[in-house]
Amino acid sequence: MIKNMAEMSLLYDFYGELLTPRQNSVMQQYYGDDYTLGEIAESEHISRQAVHDTVHKAEKALRTYEQKLGLVSRFVQTETVLDRASDELGRMMKDREDDEELVHRLDTIKEMIDTIRD
Amino acid sequence: MIKNMAEMSLLYDFYGELLTPRQNSVMQQYYGDDYTLGEIAESEHISRQAVHDTVHKAEKALRTYEQKLGLVSRFVQTETVLDRASDELGRMMKDREDDEELVHRLDTIKEMIDTIRD
Repeated sequence: MIKNMAEMSLLYDFYGELLTPRQNSVMQQYYGDDYTLGEIAESEHISRQAVHDTVHKAEKALRTYEQKLGLVSRFVQTETVLDRASDELGRMMKDREDDEELVHRLDTIKEMIDTIRD
Repeated sequence: MIKNMAEMSLLYDFYGELLTPRQNSVMQQYYGDDYTLGEIAESEHISRQAVHDTVHKAEKALRTYEQKLGLVSRFVQTETVLDRASDELGRMMKDREDDEELVHRLDTIKEMIDTIRD
C-alpha cells in the first residue's frame, strides 16, 4: 500500500464526513497524523490487517465519491485559475507601482481572491 | 410541500449523484423539469403519494449531505467573492479605458475569473 498523500488528503478533506466513524478515524490517523498501520492497530484495538483493509476500503469509497461528484477536480481547476489571477495581479502591482490609486484597487481584488484560495 | 427551487437546485447539482436512481430521477423531473407530482407519478408508474414521499426523502438526504460536507456553502461564498472581483475589474476597465495595455491585462484576469464563475 503506497500512500498517495496529496490525492488522498484532498479526497479526505472533501468527503471524509461520508465515511463510517471507524473509517474516518483510521484515515485521520493514517493520512492526517501519519501514523503507521501498527500504531493505528494498537490505538483502535484491531489487527494490523484490519487497519490495512479499512484504509483500502475507505480509499475506494473516497474515490467513488469523487467519480460521482467530481468536486475535488472542480476545486483544483478553480484553484489553478485563482493562482494565475493572483500572480498576474501581483505582477501588475509591481509594473505600475507609481500609480497609487491603481495599486490600491488591484490589491483589493488580489486580497479578495487570496481569501478564497484558503 | 413548497418548492425551494434555488436551494434544492444547488444541492441537487452538487449531491444528486449520491441519491438512489429512483430519487435522482424523481428530483430531476420535479426540480429540473418542473413537472407536477401527478405528472411524475404517471411517468414513474407510482402513486402521487409515493412521489411526494420520494421527493421529501431525497430533499432530506441532500440537506444531510450538505450538513456533513458544506460544499454548497463553500461554493456560494466563492461565487460571491468572484462576482465582486469581476465587477470591480469591469469598473476599473471603464475608469481607465484610455490605458490600452492596462485594460487588456485587466480583461485577461476578468476572463479567467468569469470562466470559473460558470
